[in-house]
Amino acid sequence: MDYNGIFKAAIDRLHDEGRYRVFIDILRNKGNFPNARCFHGHNGPKPITVWCSNDYLGMGQHDKVIAAMEQALHDVGAGSGGTRNIGGNTHLHVNLEAELADLHAKEAALLFTSGYVSNEATLSTIAKLLPGCVVYSDELNHASMIAGIRNSGCEKKIFRHNDLDHLEQLLMDAPAEAPKLIAFESVYSMDGDIAPIEAICDLADKYGAITYLDEVHAVGMYGARGGGISERDGLAERVTIIEGTLGKAFGVMGGYVAADKTIIDCIRSYAPGFIFTTSLSPVLAAGALASVKHLKGSDVERNAQQDKAAMLKRKMVEAGLPVMPSVTHIVPLMVGDPVKAKDISDILLAEYGCYVQPINFPTVPRGTERLRFTPGPFHTEAMMDELVKGLKEIWGRLDLKLAA
Amino acid sequence: MDYNGIFKAAIDRLHDEGRYRVFIDILRNKGNFPNARCFHGHNGPKPITVWCSNDYLGMGQHDKVIAAMEQALHDVGAGSGGTRNIGGNTHLHVNLEAELADLHAKEAALLFTSGYVSNEATLSTIAKLLPGCVVYSDELNHASMIAGIRNSGCEKKIFRHNDLDHLEQLLMDAPAEAPKLIAFESVYSMDGDIAPIEAICDLADKYGAITYLDEVHAVGMYGARGGGISERDGLAERVTIIEGTLGKAFGVMGGYVAADKTIIDCIRSYAPGFIFTTSLSPVLAAGALASVKHLKGSDVERNAQQDKAAMLKRKMVEAGLPVMPSVTHIVPLMVGDPVKAKDISDILLAEYGCYVQPINFPTVPRGTERLRFTPGPFHTEAMMDELVKGLKEIWGRLDLKLAA
Ligand SMILES: Cc1ncc(COP(=O)(O)O)c(C=O)c1O
Ligand SMILES: Cc1ncc(COP(=O)(O)O)c(C=O)c1O
Repeated sequence: MDYNGIFKAAIDRLHDEGRYRVFIDILRNKGNFPNARCFHGHNGPKPITVWCSNDYLGMGQHDKVIAAMEQALHDVGAGSGGTRNIGGNTHLHVNLEAELADLHAKEAALLFTSGYVSNEATLSTIAKLLPGCVVYSDELNHASMIAGIRNSGCEKKIFRHNDLDHLEQLLMDAPAEAPKLIAFESVYSMDGDIAPIEAICDLADKYGAITYLDEVHAVGMYGARGGGISERDGLAERVTIIEGTLGKAFGVMGGYVAADKTIIDCIRSYAPGFIFTTSLSPVLAAGALASVKHLKGSDVERNAQQDKAAMLKRKMVEAGLPVMPSVTHIVPLMVGDPVKAKDISDILLAEYGCYVQPINFPTVPRGTERLRFTPGPFHTEAMMDELVKGLKEIWGRLDLKLAA
Repeated sequence: MDYNGIFKAAIDRLHDEGRYRVFIDILRNKGNFPNARCFHGHNGPKPITVWCSNDYLGMGQHDKVIAAMEQALHDVGAGSGGTRNIGGNTHLHVNLEAELADLHAKEAALLFTSGYVSNEATLSTIAKLLPGCVVYSDELNHASMIAGIRNSGCEKKIFRHNDLDHLEQLLMDAPAEAPKLIAFESVYSMDGDIAPIEAICDLADKYGAITYLDEVHAVGMYGARGGGISERDGLAERVTIIEGTLGKAFGVMGGYVAADKTIIDCIRSYAPGFIFTTSLSPVLAAGALASVKHLKGSDVERNAQQDKAAMLKRKMVEAGLPVMPSVTHIVPLMVGDPVKAKDISDILLAEYGCYVQPINFPTVPRGTERLRFTPGPFHTEAMMDELVKGLKEIWGRLDLKLAA
């Protein structure tokens, strides 16, 4: 059996399609985000500006977060030392879950080691507990939701992205007595558009479905207290289960779901991805707790970030660059080809010290490869001008299409 | 549709079987392991001794680990801010992977957010890349391996625990030209026994299979440099893929696999559980790096832990308690009933300040419920005497069976 040949062929396919991924090796400079050191392609670090971090608000360097983590490190140590059930349930986990339940106006919340695991574990478990459940999934849902739905073994119906008519048609097709779960995101992070949450909840009510909303790219970012789009639009109550991450706007690592007590108790008791794993480090729990608390009471970071995103979009539009029509903090620039997207990214890094990763399949559909910028509160106007100048020059050099 | 009724019934089933889990809420005291504060069932913290941590060597409070994490916190910040491909690949991740590859004498290694995810993501991806693969799985394999194998969609054959004859019979039954993968653990953590790694590798060679070894409960603990049982027995080279955690003996959090370059590149490029998630916090990567490095060069913790485990086993045997025949650092005491196991644990905590979690289904098979003790280098003989005295008294009070 030529195992090595099979594995080598799998890698060769990626090279052939121009989507073999090279990870750029950096260290961010705490206290000086978005500045970082790049170790890629040269000896020793070179200063760069990071344009593709999902630490949207720079909370990963916030004094309160750092101080809370430092304190936990010295008070309780590095790791939790166990699963939540066996020795790994700390007071910090308990407090953080209470804080997250409150953030989403739900009775309870449950922590996971990541947003990926929260989606996979919750969707697979909840759907499995409902005999004959049909799961309705937006076609652009994140890989972690897709994994959870597939692993539930339930019947799955994919509806066209944000398409209410299509969703309703699929809901109508299923037997009235079948349990139904609609799974979708609030902010779609690669396009920057937003789901019609209220209308989806209306359909859920009409057809007796429950709803599962991934707010990974919205928590900390939208709503008066950072509760996401569901808070901003006054819809948190109407959504059955809200899922979020601690690794993006909150700047740390980990994931969670919030819902009513019984549902949370079911996930806690039945989900292998929750049960059989060392719990989140208490250091991370402490940092996330400080971050969530801070962003509940402060709008400064959210507003500054929105201003910077609007500014960068405007500058790109003025430069004739093909910005995609995002209504959120995400600034995607369409390229449409994996090799060209990588070329632009390589030149930006090597010649301009600007780091933005090309986004290719399977993260986005083939033919929609893009660059995705995430300006934050600490990106200056001068940094933007430098970036846009670079992009214009490269667009000309590579003979790329400008906006229509 | 009475969703709430369905979810409530699922919880009621757990109560009926006596296996509804109550998490004990603690904070370990860094610098004073195994001492901790317990917040469970009273106002404010009460001092306890933890007997069930998987931070086997107390590395979660080691000065080098704490110092490395503090430095990373101040140098690069709390979270990584991105997936490994998009902004979340730090120099610390790269260095830690090199260190882990070296630990297991492999060409490369790959980090995950947990050991659970490393098992799930790797097994599902590798088996899927091999067309027609048959996976051979020890019946006592961990839930995360079971999840990975199931999610691969491949044909699965379960062999009786550590039973070479049964494994060979199943290998013989499959077509010679089918790719085959044998998945097993080195130390089985609930019984404390060890797999016949060499004989399994011999069978793999004979029938053209590759091997996947979970060393989660052995890394840091066995072998001259903490490379696990495969290092101790000089077998690392013969195993195709070695998997481990950073959350047990290494005292931090995270998981990894080590193998040859091409296999690691395949997992890196194809595994959704690796690709679509925020990478490990650089703070954790720094702590794990310090821990792995330290345990490569120091036997002190490993030896002290083995001595303490032997001492506790001896004291329990002398007291007539039904210790299970573990050949490793794990000290399991058979109870055989979920309600009684919980009762013993409750009394130990309330009256003796000793915290050991009852282990019930689905972590172990029904009818084999037990208490599982993990003495470490910092448990004193006085603590053990106190514990054994308590156990003897409770065994009498509840009229439990002593050892035959
Ligand atoms: C929509 C969405 N959901 C879930 C996740 C996973 O969250 P985490 O990074 O915390 O694993 C991501 C990205 O990583 C995401 O984009
Ligand atoms: C055998 C085994 N493999 C894998 C895991 C998962 O590792 P982690 O806790 O790092 O997720 C565990 C326990 O948690 C385990 O016991």
